[in-house]
Amino acid sequence: MAGNTFGQAFRITTAGESHGPGNVVIIDGVPAGIPLTVDDLVVDLNRRRPGQSHITTQRDEADLPEILAGVFEGRTTGTSIAILIRNTDQRSKDYGDIKDVYRPGHADFTFDAKYGFRDYRGGGRSSARETTARVAAGVVAKRLLSDALGARVVGYVHQVGKVEAQVAHPEEVTQQQVEQLADGSPNIIRCPDHAAGAKMIKLIEKVRKEQDSIGGAATIVATGIPAGLGEPVFDKLKADLAKALFSLPAVLGVEYGIGFGCATMRGSAHNDHFVPRREGETSPVSIPAIDGITTNTNRHGGMLGGISSGLPIILKAAVKPTSSLPLEQPTMTSQGKPKTIRTKGRHDPCLLPRFIPMAEAMVAIVLADHWLRWCGQKNWKSSPGER
Amino acid sequence: MAGNTFGQAFRITTAGESHGPGNVVIIDGVPAGIPLTVDDLVVDLNRRRPGQSHITTQRDEADLPEILAGVFEGRTTGTSIAILIRNTDQRSKDYGDIKDVYRPGHADFTFDAKYGFRDYRGGGRSSARETTARVAAGVVAKRLLSDALGARVVGYVHQVGKVEAQVAHPEEVTQQQVEQLADGSPNIIRCPDHAAGAKMIKLIEKVRKEQDSIGGAATIVATGIPAGLGEPVFDKLKADLAKALFSLPAVLGVEYGIGFGCATMRGSAHNDHFVPRREGETSPVSIPAIDGITTNTNRHGGMLGGISSGLPIILKAAVKPTSSLPLEQPTMTSQGKPKTIRTKGRHDPCLLPRFIPMAEAMVAIVLADHWLRWCGQKNWKSSPGER
Amino acid sequence: MAGNTFGQAFRITTAGESHGPGNVVIIDGVPAGIPLTVDDLVVDLNRRRPGQSHITTQRDEADLPEILAGVFEGRTTGTSIAILIRNTDQRSKDYGDIKDVYRPGHADFTFDAKYGFRDYRGGGRSSARETTARVAAGVVAKRLLSDALGARVVGYVHQVGKVEAQVAHPEEVTQQQVEQLADGSPNIIRCPDHAAGAKMIKLIEKVRKEQDSIGGAATIVATGIPAGLGEPVFDKLKADLAKALFSLPAVLGVEYGIGFGCATMRGSAHNDHFVPRREGETSPVSIPAIDGITTNTNRHGGMLGGISSGLPIILKAAVKPTSSLPLEQPTMTSQGKPKTIRTKGRHDPCLLPRFIPMAEAMVAIVLADHWLRWCGQKNWKSSPGER
Amino acid sequence: MAGNTFGQAFRITTAGESHGPGNVVIIDGVPAGIPLTVDDLVVDLNRRRPGQSHITTQRDEADLPEILAGVFEGRTTGTSIAILIRNTDQRSKDYGDIKDVYRPGHADFTFDAKYGFRDYRGGGRSSARETTARVAAGVVAKRLLSDALGARVVGYVHQVGKVEAQVAHPEEVTQQQVEQLADGSPNIIRCPDHAAGAKMIKLIEKVRKEQDSIGGAATIVATGIPAGLGEPVFDKLKADLAKALFSLPAVLGVEYGIGFGCATMRGSAHNDHFVPRREGETSPVSIPAIDGITTNTNRHGGMLGGISSGLPIILKAAVKPTSSLPLEQPTMTSQGKPKTIRTKGRHDPCLLPRFIPMAEAMVAIVLADHWLRWCGQKNWKSSPGER
Repeated sequence: MAGNTFGQAFRITTAGESHGPGNVVIIDGVPAGIPLTVDDLVVDLNRRRPGQSHITTQRDEADLPEILAGVFEGRTTGTSIAILIRNTDQRSKDYGDIKDVYRPGHADFTFDAKYGFRDYRGGGRSSARETTARVAAGVVAKRLLSDALGARVVGYVHQVGKVEAQVAHPEEVTQQQVEQLADGSPNIIRCPDHAAGAKMIKLIEKVRKEQDSIGGAATIVATGIPAGLGEPVFDKLKADLAKALFSLPAVLGVEYGIGFGCATMRGSAHNDHFVPRREGETSPVSIPAIDGITTNTNRHGGMLGGISSGLPIILKAAVKPTSSLPLEQPTMTSQGKPKTIRTKGRHDPCLLPRFIPMAEAMVAIVLADHWLRWCGQKNWKSSPGER
Repeated sequence: MAGNTFGQAFRITTAGESHGPGNVVIIDGVPAGIPLTVDDLVVDLNRRRPGQSHITTQRDEADLPEILAGVFEGRTTGTSIAILIRNTDQRSKDYGDIKDVYRPGHADFTFDAKYGFRDYRGGGRSSARETTARVAAGVVAKRLLSDALGARVVGYVHQVGKVEAQVAHPEEVTQQQVEQLADGSPNIIRCPDHAAGAKMIKLIEKVRKEQDSIGGAATIVATGIPAGLGEPVFDKLKADLAKALFSLPAVLGVEYGIGFGCATMRGSAHNDHFVPRREGETSPVSIPAIDGITTNTNRHGGMLGGISSGLPIILKAAVKPTSSLPLEQPTMTSQGKPKTIRTKGRHDPCLLPRFIPMAEAMVAIVLADHWLRWCGQKNWKSSPGER
Repeated sequence: MAGNTFGQAFRITTAGESHGPGNVVIIDGVPAGIPLTVDDLVVDLNRRRPGQSHITTQRDEADLPEILAGVFEGRTTGTSIAILIRNTDQRSKDYGDIKDVYRPGHADFTFDAKYGFRDYRGGGRSSARETTARVAAGVVAKRLLSDALGARVVGYVHQVGKVEAQVAHPEEVTQQQVEQLADGSPNIIRCPDHAAGAKMIKLIEKVRKEQDSIGGAATIVATGIPAGLGEPVFDKLKADLAKALFSLPAVLGVEYGIGFGCATMRGSAHNDHFVPRREGETSPVSIPAIDGITTNTNRHGGMLGGISSGLPIILKAAVKPTSSLPLEQPTMTSQGKPKTIRTKGRHDPCLLPRFIPMAEAMVAIVLADHWLRWCGQKNWKSSPGER
Repeated sequence: MAGNTFGQAFRITTAGESHGPGNVVIIDGVPAGIPLTVDDLVVDLNRRRPGQSHITTQRDEADLPEILAGVFEGRTTGTSIAILIRNTDQRSKDYGDIKDVYRPGHADFTFDAKYGFRDYRGGGRSSARETTARVAAGVVAKRLLSDALGARVVGYVHQVGKVEAQVAHPEEVTQQQVEQLADGSPNIIRCPDHAAGAKMIKLIEKVRKEQDSIGGAATIVATGIPAGLGEPVFDKLKADLAKALFSLPAVLGVEYGIGFGCATMRGSAHNDHFVPRREGETSPVSIPAIDGITTNTNRHGGMLGGISSGLPIILKAAVKPTSSLPLEQPTMTSQGKPKTIRTKGRHDPCLLPRFIPMAEAMVAIVLADHWLRWCGQKNWKSSPGER
């Protein structure tokens, strides 16, 4: 029942499959007057797009969005925004031999169980192709956060296989570090520890040659978010952020702050302590929660009681290795007969580089949603005349 | 804005604070005719209640629920159910000295930032006391799942500090193993590996003596859930389960199946393979997804593409060490002055034993919700005459 | 499925039946800091309560509310508010003979069709008793509108049978005119045209003697609502107001502004014209929509394109005659046998006087909801520091 | 905030303006396997389209829909459906002189008040052009109701000015009577009383010549709806239907059954009585609510306690005269200066003929929504294996 909508005040609704005409998103609740153009959308769509480097899939989709509604003379109108990203490189024939076969790790089997049939040309609605719509909506959310708060959301690849990035201050990572190497060339792995990134790329190249894939983990950081976002019980900020990240394909785990590391910690070592904020201090607390108070450490990942504390919000997501493999794998047909399957190229050996813009988008959408939700509560007495 | 409601088809709305008159839940969407009594509710409320053993807080709250609406002659009526659990042992005076002090790790600071003031007698709405309402609703969800599907939800303590349980088959753990030792005495730690449980208890006793607290992790397993629950994009079953668990106090991480372990795995080792289901086979696949097909392993934790696969659903949650400590901790007052704080007894040295019924409740609520959501979709052609 | 919640930003969820322990409402989304006491609630509950005059039912229910959550030291906390109104005068035995009989005009038959059984002691969830919860929530909404905007919602009885009130300026009717006669005695009919009201009372007395009931219509006016409330398409203000009024028992029709009168009008006679607003003008435009502009007439009932125009919002609802009658009526049993039924006293001969506070409550709830919804949109850039 | 979504289980979300690229609807919650083609959509879009006869506007828009998602090989997939209807005949230049002028009766003024600016080329989001998206969604809802229940929704023009249709049995009106005259030629007025329809057409022709417009009323009837749809309190079927109709442009009043006529009735004359259903009886009760029981009359309009009774659901909506007039009207500019305005042709002299498919669509959407909502509740025990 109706599971294609996300958010309350900033609300997105999507439709679209991998092999249909295209993917569309309706964004509802965006305030009037925010500048928005197709060019804005293209930036992150290009970071998500296939074929962007030799360590991603070689499918080539231009992902040119069309704004169908909600923008007039370059500004949002306050009414619902619709964006369409057409599918161009569908190549249905590539998928003919998977028509009756349940690809391991994919949703073919569960779709058949749920719906009785499925779009056998590919993942259909379960394909990561649907994330184009999310990434487009994420651009609008990022813009809103930036204009309202000067806030930003930056994601990066933290781990590929056993190679982990060393990042002392996640809240100081810039998008430039994520997107470019020191020489200005593209940082195709999106790891801000460029030395680790080089190792990750080598590992991915090795895995690809062996017709296999590899998992990893991503970190997403939001800075400039003031204290007060999130609701106390079910709609805790951590809960909505977790749902957002888990709603992305291939995510098997999410943690924030110290995360699973808390299981072995004592309270005395775990608690962050409230301390006076020093004059001019901008990091790790870029926005004062309540003037003059901050915490000396950020094991709490920027959220206490599910409400933002003013410190950077820091999340980590585990991403499984790509399920589609050039290697032959045993499986079953929908008629219950054993069969083997192998993917004929054009799949990502590692999902992480393209996962970053998707994860950023979902985090930005949750934060924009909670920001607007809170705005209504805290400004309920403001005079109607003022805009 | 309005964050006290959870679920769509099986929908709960709660209110209540630690030091107010009580906690109340309205459960909407429960089908008519399900047997329900106060005694049913008491079972899990007693598993959640403080003072149940020497390793939990010694506060003593009877937690006797009253069914205010929605039940007639012992059966649900199909209309909204309301349950009230009054607060009895409030002892406001215990909390007098925390009136102006931000307790480390608590929501005092973020509540002040969000609302401008707070119920200074305790956690108020951020207190884990609000979970009484969830646990009561969870009983109704469990009953629905049991009556409709024969499904069950069992949680247990997997880890306390560095002590981890060895559980070869999580899906075979019974509630009896979790609640009782071999000799029938109460298993106060709720770990089905009784040897590990004994070590956990010793660790908690040690931590308590040292006026400290300790973190841990819990596993929650749902069996008997058929393939097909969950929606493809935002309302993936994994996403709603993660939101549910993260909405509980103290949860810093959630994973399912192989979880964060996937980051270092290759696709060829990670994918579960579809295989024929053997006659009479009941484990690990207790419910056939599609007749005759299952997977040989369950690294996917019972969900593929965010939709249940028919295999046991297996989740893990990381729970931080209790923030309130008898040990003295430095902090600040709301006026920005440094001060120290220590909790005068009566707090849990480890949250895990009492976390289990809360986590089971939230998992059951999500599954009941998705089951009802799916029922409408798959039975839309059924004749109106039949009930 | 889950139909006991109303509103988005100001959201109420209710439970309760006529013959259960009581009725409860959870109000979610109320900003922090609004003064609220039990005494505030009692005012409107007393206007709704049975037994308030000789022209209403003689059942006597005290309707004393208890605030269970969400209020601390006399102010709303920003978290969910719960209010319980216990049932006191249930007298189940009065209803014994209606156990198997479908009362004409009631929901007995449709409840059996929907749920397979029903609370046979009375209307159960379909009883107007559930409106106690709405009236309590309405008090909170009225307070919010008053504090934020100086706005007020006033309802009155416009018509009983063929007796219609003559009210030249609905927007100028005060609550005092509705509640009191010139001599200060209670205006039990709640018609501000006291001469017409006297005729209505006589008509009701006559109908009562003849063991019958009579229908009527109510007008509800909201003044002080600024231009801008309501969303352009589905959540038009008129649409949400209509849903709110139709959700009340016995309402068969709703119109606003010129209403059904528009069917015979020409556009040239129907359109209200925009004109300059005169200095100091307070009526009919009590709040300037956009400085200096208003309309010279208000056939549009304060809403254009479903969005408030700044002029008074004027609605009318048709209320059917009470279905329960002392007169004998033919009907059927649930086993399909013909039977007659008569209600043994204690029902309202005319629903209108007690309908007024219910209708005011629902209108106030919609306006509070849309006000908060809009606040988030128009104040999204406000600095986080300011509260 | 987010007001572009309607429905819960059958949920539509729309975007689009009169002068943007097009209008789009995402339909969520549609079960898998329902046949759907572009040709199905075109039928009702053509009934809504401008330029269809000499008594409607002469704008000519082809309204050719494109199914962007959710349909595979001619059947719904169970995932979200997206439909795009591009705008073709925008003629922006026609609207140049209304840029700064508030058209009487339109939303120009309230949009400026709400958003601070507006798409000055036309109605933008407030234009009835957005109903193309609703009509497309209505086709899917009608198909679902037809396939699941054999139910149908038929609307017709009941009144134009003072000309009223005489229709003894609204539940027996067929779509053919509404769409065609006896000789097979198009019934351009959509009134099943063809004699009255001829008078309506003459009235409209007269009004058009006089550069004016005229109001009217429409009746919408749903037959084949079983007893049991609707929720007891807020989501009463009558409440959701009223919201649906009031959400359409130009609707000022809605009633069902006896409607406002109830105000002057006595209970003894108003109540419909339950009687045995005669063998083979098909009208007015086309579907047995509970076998063997029906009512002898249908003043209750097919809903009791807000829940369908199995009798035909009968609604009436008042539609105001078109606000845009060729006649010169006085108004104001957004700068507060008086100015006159006249619409240069191409607007409907009477909205009713084109209103019918819009109203049918909204009624069908509500019924499909409540049908799916109920399906989940009444089939919650059905075995998972069966589909």
